[in-house]
Amino acid sequence: MTEQVSVTGLVATTPRHLVTQDGLPITSFRLASSQRRFDRKENKWIDGETNWYTVTAFRQLAINASTSVSKGDRVTVLGKLRVRDWDNGERAGTSVEIESDSIGHDLAWGTSAFTRTVLVREADSIEEPAEAEQPVLAGTSGKAGK
Amino acid sequence: MTEQVSVTGLVATTPRHLVTQDGLPITSFRLASSQRRFDRKENKWIDGETNWYTVTAFRQLAINASTSVSKGDRVTVLGKLRVRDWDNGERAGTSVEIESDSIGHDLAWGTSAFTRTVLVREADSIEEPAEAEQPVLAGTSGKAGK
Amino acid sequence: MTEQVSVTGLVATTPRHLVTQDGLPITSFRLASSQRRFDRKENKWIDGETNWYTVTAFRQLAINASTSVSKGDRVTVLGKLRVRDWDNGERAGTSVEIESDSIGHDLAWGTSAFTRTVLVREADSIEEPAEAEQPVLAGTSGKAGK
Amino acid sequence: MTEQVSVTGLVATTPRHLVTQDGLPITSFRLASSQRRFDRKENKWIDGETNWYTVTAFRQLAINASTSVSKGDRVTVLGKLRVRDWDNGERAGTSVEIESDSIGHDLAWGTSAFTRTVLVREADSIEEPAEAEQPVLAGTSGKAGK
Repeated sequence: MTEQVSVTGLVATTPRHLVTQDGLPITSFRLASSQRRFDRKENKWIDGETNWYTVTAFRQLAINASTSVSKGDRVTVLGKLRVRDWDNGERAGTSVEIESDSIGHDLAWGTSAFTRTVLVREADSIEEPAEAEQPVLAGTSGKAGK
Repeated sequence: MTEQVSVTGLVATTPRHLVTQDGLPITSFRLASSQRRFDRKENKWIDGETNWYTVTAFRQLAINASTSVSKGDRVTVLGKLRVRDWDNGERAGTSVEIESDSIGHDLAWGTSAFTRTVLVREADSIEEPAEAEQPVLAGTSGKAGK
Repeated sequence: MTEQVSVTGLVATTPRHLVTQDGLPITSFRLASSQRRFDRKENKWIDGETNWYTVTAFRQLAINASTSVSKGDRVTVLGKLRVRDWDNGERAGTSVEIESDSIGHDLAWGTSAFTRTVLVREADSIEEPAEAEQPVLAGTSGKAGK
Repeated sequence: MTEQVSVTGLVATTPRHLVTQDGLPITSFRLASSQRRFDRKENKWIDGETNWYTVTAFRQLAINASTSVSKGDRVTVLGKLRVRDWDNGERAGTSVEIESDSIGHDLAWGTSAFTRTVLVREADSIEEPAEAEQPVLAGTSGKAGK
């Protein structure tokens, strides 16, 4: 199985961008995800330990991430988890990588101005069938203020 | 169990923003996720059926989403899935909602300029322990172009 | 995108098994997942609302599920989420289906005796590289009782 | 954020069970998840690289897993991902653990006989509201064989 993961965290290194000899754009950075948990004794949320990931992006996602993502940003990453052994001759270890399918700035932490670079595809003209319509925010509209 | 889902798709309605009488900001929109699959006979990717969701956001995420997200944007949403029956007196049905923890513009489809609105918290000063360092892009650096 | 979900819940109907005219085995049942949350005022876990799914399985998984899964069992299901409109001529609505890749009895609720029906495949002879070995339960072995 | 993962794979070590001095039951084993991918040139599925995890279980899940799970079994594990550095004095490295919420034998690979050990809780008497009923296997019943 391929493990899909979604991680929300802090970009901890300046994204590094390169293009392989074959012309493949690659961007990568380190991502820190701190686990918060509710401490019942203290009656408050506290920061727990941190998961560290190497995030990699390819092709168009790599190009856009390299110009949009900076160290210190809060992002959400979706992708495939890869747990790999590595050995560079001097040292060896285990790396935990996410080969990303999507990266986005986390709007829980800020605003973003989006500019599409990918041309409109057929799927973008999608229209929801009328019969499927339903009250958006069903059940809460009655509470709406004026 | 609470089902966590992550969905990448197209914002299909203009986000609707309101504040409840209790002062709670809420933003909601419809999200369309088309399932693409590789057709072996045709030897190409084709669009399959579409999952429709009502995405809801609360508090700071609602405020930022209302100013950042537009109909037609490509976004990634993380949140809790809620399958609920609804009945507005005239019609009844089943709604599929995502109560979002994170929303972000999908950098696979464009670039974004991010402005933080949430003050720096303690966790942002996080530094990776030196001993955990490893070659970023381990195994691929040899292929790097100039 | 195809939304992967994992759901732990209660089998709420007797699984129904059939074989299509094309010879495809299909098993399906309704699955109820109740969302528990910690109530800070009451200082205890309480049951929240319930998500209802129709779980479908095909081929070998369908055959094994039909003989192993009963109404009232606690199971974990992994699969692809499908939100679909349906109309049977008399009534119409929205169904939320999980096309399952895996179904298993949840060992948090009981024990299970497993009998393999699928022949051993090459991947089963997998051996972990010696250099990747590490102390299982690293950091907790010191606390082990006698 | 806490990263939830679901992994389907092969139990690669005999599960190890212990009880801490505080009376906490713990079970752990190594889990191998091989990533299969469709090779378009070869026109067939091939095994890719393998993700290795240390799975830990606590309390009732640990007790049931220790008597139900054997090396060589195919299981599905749901839980929280923990990427941690470890150092046992002689060697150091990174471990990738799943603190499991659920473990179950994968019915795609065999059958299981389930025996509940946890007493019936209130949630088990759950009944689906009649108005939510819908045709199970909607749209496929017409294809059913005899």
